[in-house]
Parts: sequence; structure tokens; C-alpha cells
Amino acid sequence: MNEFEIIAKMFAPLSKGEEGAFDLKDDCAVVSINNSKQLVVTSDTLVAGRHFLVSDPPELIGRKCLCANVSDLAAMGAKPRYFSLSSVWPSDTEVEWIQKFSQGLQTAQSDWEITLIGGDTVSSSGPLALSITAIGEVNHGKSLLRSGASIGDDIFVTGTIGDATLGLLLSQNVITVNNKRDKTYFVSHFQSPEPRHKIGEILIGIASSATDVSDSLAQDMMNVLNASNVSAQLNLENIPFSSRAKSLLAEQIIDYDTLLTGGDDYELLFTAPPSSSRKISYISNQSPVPITCIGKIVPANSVSSIVILDKDNKKIQLPQTLGFSHF
Amino acid sequence: MNEFEIIAKMFAPLSKGEEGAFDLKDDCAVVSINNSKQLVVTSDTLVAGRHFLVSDPPELIGRKCLCANVSDLAAMGAKPRYFSLSSVWPSDTEVEWIQKFSQGLQTAQSDWEITLIGGDTVSSSGPLALSITAIGEVNHGKSLLRSGASIGDDIFVTGTIGDATLGLLLSQNVITVNNKRDKTYFVSHFQSPEPRHKIGEILIGIASSATDVSDSLAQDMMNVLNASNVSAQLNLENIPFSSRAKSLLAEQIIDYDTLLTGGDDYELLFTAPPSSSRKISYISNQSPVPITCIGKIVPANSVSSIVILDKDNKKIQLPQTLGFSHF
Repeated sequence: MNEFEIIAKMFAPLSKGEEGAFDLKDDCAVVSINNSKQLVVTSDTLVAGRHFLVSDPPELIGRKCLCANVSDLAAMGAKPRYFSLSSVWPSDTEVEWIQKFSQGLQTAQSDWEITLIGGDTVSSSGPLALSITAIGEVNHGKSLLRSGASIGDDIFVTGTIGDATLGLLLSQNVITVNNKRDKTYFVSHFQSPEPRHKIGEILIGIASSATDVSDSLAQDMMNVLNASNVSAQLNLENIPFSSRAKSLLAEQIIDYDTLLTGGDDYELLFTAPPSSSRKISYISNQSPVPITCIGKIVPANSVSSIVILDKDNKKIQLPQTLGFSHF
Repeated sequence: MNEFEIIAKMFAPLSKGEEGAFDLKDDCAVVSINNSKQLVVTSDTLVAGRHFLVSDPPELIGRKCLCANVSDLAAMGAKPRYFSLSSVWPSDTEVEWIQKFSQGLQTAQSDWEITLIGGDTVSSSGPLALSITAIGEVNHGKSLLRSGASIGDDIFVTGTIGDATLGLLLSQNVITVNNKRDKTYFVSHFQSPEPRHKIGEILIGIASSATDVSDSLAQDMMNVLNASNVSAQLNLENIPFSSRAKSLLAEQIIDYDTLLTGGDDYELLFTAPPSSSRKISYISNQSPVPITCIGKIVPANSVSSIVILDKDNKKIQLPQTLGFSHF
């Protein structure tokens, strides 16, 4: 099966319903955006062995790559619309594998209301690399930026933090747990994260800044702080670690650094003025995932920093490296 | 230098002037498109050893990747606006190399009036892979499609055909030429092609269909024919081979198949009704590259096909494989 057949059989069905994708057979897609909207554009690349494991189920790998991109749209409060997929496949990739991959992608795009409109399919001697560029839309001038955090704002995060990185460590046998259900729970957080775009869209006009937790809570918090020229004071007790993660902490299988500097959660991290707190409680109550206040924005000294206080108000020291670095 | 520093020092300068790119520091870019326009979106991935050689000058590799995408926009008649660059780098890539690469990209984006607004920078154990997604704009409903060719239309191509593939064959020492200037000429066509978006924009309302010659004249012609349910009759004598390529043909260093099934020219291939021929002559006269009529659209039998006639009206047989296949 050559790349034209792969595109026609496995990827073109994902563009069905979008006339301007021309069954992925023209040089470009031609699509429309509502007049009053701005385009929100993001790209994320996932590489086998780095962002997912080759042993992960193929159905979930496409889903995860799309999640990383939809999660970026969520962080701007944008509504997902279109995406393109550029894939570099090892030459010996089996057709069945690509078939399962595309099925997973189809389910994901249907769940998240976004449509494939193009891409490129090539082969190389290297590992599988998947690049998605996603396009969303947002009302003119309304997108949530990293740079909007103000002193006195509360800091919130959706869902739980650190479960995905524990899933990775378990998949790699870096740590082990006895309880099978615990392992399944963590691994599914790593393999099959959910983007929070529905919450992101609702947060427009409510949140003062936002990002998603992809590198790590510490690194992504730092990005917001640097962009906003402020610092953060977080309360360790309030950071939403799952009860299963807390058990591993109690058993000293992991420490807090693992959870604070591990990536792949794809939760939203945002700030909002105290006047928004009732609205946020309401959103949290309506949402399938909780939203938790984890700290406050405080003035920066010469540089932005994160202070984390434990239950006795003692400072927790974060490691030098806050997340994964590629070079 | 980690990826954040690489992005800040080498790629963020390319987003200067586009406020909504946020210095490549936010989760997404937020950009606007004119109200009356549609978005034209394309993605092309270039892999070291396949689409360019690792020994090619780094300044030209970024340029070529952007060219492949701008050329797709050209094929729709779209005006280039924005692009994102997702790059997968071998871990041992030298910073100087990336620096030169980004300088070449900066020159190219300035030449072609398109701006970097985002992307992703990761490393892997595989070869360098560059994925660009480009966004252009076109008046609503006016884009040039592959599917618009009609029986009786003339078939045109810009520039020359086959020089790029000769540059590749020379770079790989598959063929050799004695004249140094000839080699430089061909290699520069392979390494440093020019997209024809200015011509593409002018062809709106004049051409009935269009594509760009990226895979090969034969393959890309076939794509138009299949999309339009027609066939083509081409006159070999009229296909614009350069005088240098014709010398290699005369010396039997190459044959016609090499030129007709070789890729990377990034010329425009389009059809237009005979009533447009004076307008096209005018455009050709005004343009730095010639536009040549190479044949006619004729009815398809059950399937689309290309008939190529030589100067004695004898049919030239095309090989089974019309272009490069990745799998």
C-alpha cells in the first residue's frame, strides 16, 4: 500500500463532512471561519519513545497527539475546528497498525468536534513522528493568554496532577505497584488524556490567564509567571493529587518532585481574580472534572518564581529542572 | 541550549511583526483573516535523505521546506499569510546548523511574504524531519482546484521541468556532468526552488484547474486528470526542458522518463479554456518565468490517462510508476 492508498483509505474518511478538505486529494484544504472570529493555531509533535511508547495501543497514540493540540486550543479558550496531520512513518510500519491508529483518531476527532482537513504522509528510517497543527476559533480579542495573571489572582487547575507521569514510569518499569487497578488507572492517564476545551471555552471573560499542563505543573506555571511578570505561591496540600498518587507518596515509591515536574496531564492551569471565584465554583460543579484552587499570584522580585508551602507552611524546594528538555 | 532557548533565539525572531504569535511563547498563535476570505491550509513534511540531503546547505533546507508549502498555496491561487514549523532534530544537531537553517528560513519568509507564528521543536534518534503547515487566504469560493479541468482546455506549466531532479541525481552522483556550471544550475534547482504564488494569485478566474509539480509532471498531471475525470494529450516538443537538460538528453546521460517522473520542480501546472490564452500570454510576458502550453485536455475513456506525443506524433510510453512512493 503506497501513501496515496493509505491517505485515501485511512485518512480521507476522517475528512468526510468537510467539503473543503476535497477528500485530502487537492493541494490544500479551503475552509471558512466565522466572520467575527480570530484563528487560533497550534502545532504539537509527538515522537515514539519520547511522548508515547511504541508498545502503546495504536488507537490511543493518534488520540493522544490530537489531545496535545486540542489542549493547547483549550488553553486559549478556543473552539476546535480543523487539524492537519503530518506523519513520518518507519518504512516497515504495518498497514494494520496505521488502520488502528486512524480509527482511534476518528473517535477522538468525533469526541472533540474537530475535523481532519489535510496533512502529509512520508516514511523515514527514524521513529514514528506525528505532527498535528490544529486550528480553532475564538471571538476577536478574547483569547486567554499566559500573560494576563495579576497579583492577587487565584491559581486553579483542572483534574488531577501527576497521574500521567506515573503511568509513563509504570509503563517503563521505572516504578512498580502491586495493585493492577492502580496501574491501569495511571497508564490510562498517560495513554489516553482528555483535553479540557469545553472548560477553556467557558473560562473566556472569567480567567485572567491560562495554559495547559503538558510539560509539568512547575514548568507550565513558570511559563505563565514569566509571561505575566509575577510569582506564585502554591499550597502543596491543595494541589489535586489523586488518592492513588497520594498512596504512592505515602509508600515513598515516588516523591513530590515526580508529580510536580512530570508532564502529559493536559489539564488546564489558569488564574482568575477573587471576584470570579463563585463563577468558577459553579463551573467546577457542572463539570465532569473538578477545578481546584492551588494558590495565589504574588509580586515577583527581580525574576518570577514559584514558592510551594507544605501544610506546616514550610517551603518545598523544587528541582533545578522543572520538566523534560529535548536538547 | 535547550529547546526553549532554541525557539527564543532562532525561531521567535521570525515571528516578529506578528503580535498574535506572542514571540512563540504562548500555547497558540491568534491571528486574523480578512472577513471576505477563506482559509487555505496545507502541510508538507520534508525528511533528510528523502527530500533533501544532509549535506545540503542548512540555509537552503528551511527555504525548501517553506517553498513546498507556499507552492501548494500557489496551486490554489492563495496569498501566503502564516506558517508553523514542527521540527524533529537528531539529538546531536549543532546549534550553528540550526542558526543557519533559521537564517535561510527568515530570508525565504521575507521573500514570500509569509510569517512564522508557531510550531514545535523536539528531538529524536531519527533523521531531521521538518513539517510545515502553511495558511493562506483566498476570496470566498475562488480557489483553484484540481477538479476543474474541462475537455478542450489548454494545459500550461511555468518555468522548466526536470532540472530539480537532475540536481538531485547529480548530488547523489547517480549521473555526472563535466561542465561545472551545468552542475551548479541543476543543483540550485533542487536545493533552492522558487514557489509561483504570485502567478497562482493572478490565475484566479483565468485557470480552470491547477496543481504544483512536486512529485513529477506525470504524477501531478495524473492527479488533476483523476480529479477532473478527463485525460491529457501532451506534446513532448512543447514541454519546457531547459537547454542544459536537453543537452543531457542528447548525450543520452538521461532519458525523458527521468524528466517526466522526477520531482521537486515546484512549478505550477494548470489548465485554462482557449478563451484565456491571450491573458496567459500577457501574464507570461510580465512574469520572470515563462508559461508554456504543453498540451490539451481530452475526454477520458473509462479511466484518466496521459498520452505524450513526440515530434513525429508517435506515442511515448510512460513508466508504470509516475513518481516517488514512500511505502
